[in-house]
Amino acid sequence: MAMIINGRELANEIDGQTKIEVEKLSHEGLIPHLVVILVGEDEASQIYVRNKHKRAESLGIKSTIIRMPVNSSEEELLIKISDLNKDKDVHAILVQLPLPEQINEQRIIEAISPNKDADGFSPINVGKLSSGETYHLPIACTPMGIMEMFKKYSIDLDGKNAVVVGRSNIVGKPMANLLLNENATVTIAHSHTKNITNIIKQADILVVATGIAHFIKKDQVKIGATVIDVGMDRDENGKLTGDVDFEGVKSIASFITPVPKGVGPMTISMLMKQTVNLAKWSI
Amino acid sequence: MAMIINGRELANEIDGQTKIEVEKLSHEGLIPHLVVILVGEDEASQIYVRNKHKRAESLGIKSTIIRMPVNSSEEELLIKISDLNKDKDVHAILVQLPLPEQINEQRIIEAISPNKDADGFSPINVGKLSSGETYHLPIACTPMGIMEMFKKYSIDLDGKNAVVVGRSNIVGKPMANLLLNENATVTIAHSHTKNITNIIKQADILVVATGIAHFIKKDQVKIGATVIDVGMDRDENGKLTGDVDFEGVKSIASFITPVPKGVGPMTISMLMKQTVNLAKWSI
Repeated sequence: MAMIINGRELANEIDGQTKIEVEKLSHEGLIPHLVVILVGEDEASQIYVRNKHKRAESLGIKSTIIRMPVNSSEEELLIKISDLNKDKDVHAILVQLPLPEQINEQRIIEAISPNKDADGFSPINVGKLSSGETYHLPIACTPMGIMEMFKKYSIDLDGKNAVVVGRSNIVGKPMANLLLNENATVTIAHSHTKNITNIIKQADILVVATGIAHFIKKDQVKIGATVIDVGMDRDENGKLTGDVDFEGVKSIASFITPVPKGVGPMTISMLMKQTVNLAKWSI
Repeated sequence: MAMIINGRELANEIDGQTKIEVEKLSHEGLIPHLVVILVGEDEASQIYVRNKHKRAESLGIKSTIIRMPVNSSEEELLIKISDLNKDKDVHAILVQLPLPEQINEQRIIEAISPNKDADGFSPINVGKLSSGETYHLPIACTPMGIMEMFKKYSIDLDGKNAVVVGRSNIVGKPMANLLLNENATVTIAHSHTKNITNIIKQADILVVATGIAHFIKKDQVKIGATVIDVGMDRDENGKLTGDVDFEGVKSIASFITPVPKGVGPMTISMLMKQTVNLAKWSI
């Protein structure tokens, strides 16, 4: 029976460290400041933005939400970002995705100063991660949170077969780079992959980010594997669930993350930690 | 018996296209200009630099070699790069690696303007490749040359198991990103990989860049695989050879590159093509 990785608990622990760090910096006159830009009124985005705001405030991080109307132009958003890039009081900028269709997401991501890149999506930061140049580097928060889990639970990655299912720029690709930097043998599988069961079956470390509820079943998983579920799906009853059939897989894995209370809570904690780091690195 | 991929022939073909392109641009008053900086007198580097210069001249590309003494400081090299970045007459800059130890390679790579990045090593360009943002993007020349081979020989990558052995920033990592962008399932194996034979055996597409002569033997390769050998090694008699035991493997692969006359000639042709592209993209 697998050990269940408690993402909620680890997130609380990291938040505790972040809070102490913020207090220390405040004494030195530096108050980390995160600015989140929300364009439009997408319901899920509003919840995410509110959660980030609350978490930041609870840790003593200054949090500003800038709301822009759904019909804002790309130009207006670029001007806003340019102002924030120049503002010395702002340490971290996050543009909540998705954006309305008149705005090119990639162009917006590229406009954020790499030194204030709260999400770690800026191409120069992505490139440095790929090259293994990780000194003072902001990195995508979800895979960073997963790396913290490996560390906390002393899960060795060196030489292990790691399979990442899903190749998004937000999770799959940075995850693969982080695992490779820790000397895992890394395979990226995705929607075009053939014989996916055969590939998954060889994973010592399995990270699943497909967005398909219960995509991974017990008989596909190697006995003793570490299984990380990035999914935030709804089952047939509308209940929050993951990409992994947790009940089945936990009987054969050695470590597994649940949904909820697994990867989810870590992402926002890593965003807070990264905001504080960006503030520290700015001086 | 495998079809042997003729890198020399394909390189000549690409050079022919590049030459025509250069002539066209010259008529419009644009002469592509590559500047190669060589610090010190490393023997192999001198040969590489001379070969690039000759090839450029034969194609009508303007080629300048800047030689700096082996004891040049990082600062001196950075000033030189900064001047070239500003010089409108220069379209492509390449700093020949390796550099003397008093100079930080990564800092030099990052100093080259991403718009004049002949090698495609600049972090912002690496990040864009990773994100699949390849419009007007300079990309590492060796893996680009390999992609041209796949195209020329109609080797389908979509959904195929691709294994890249070696994880350098120059070959392995950009190769993995290019294969992933073409919808291959990609595994990166390296010196820490366990059971490497098992992993290699599953490769439909095998790219080997280990620098170890005859690292890959016939019994490790899947029947019908495409085998790309990036090695430039010396055998026990000092003869140029590859990372793959060509004689053995060719009997079971469906496509294979020889050494010499495989990947090697393609790299310099791709550098020439990229120089011309950078010139075109500059206007």
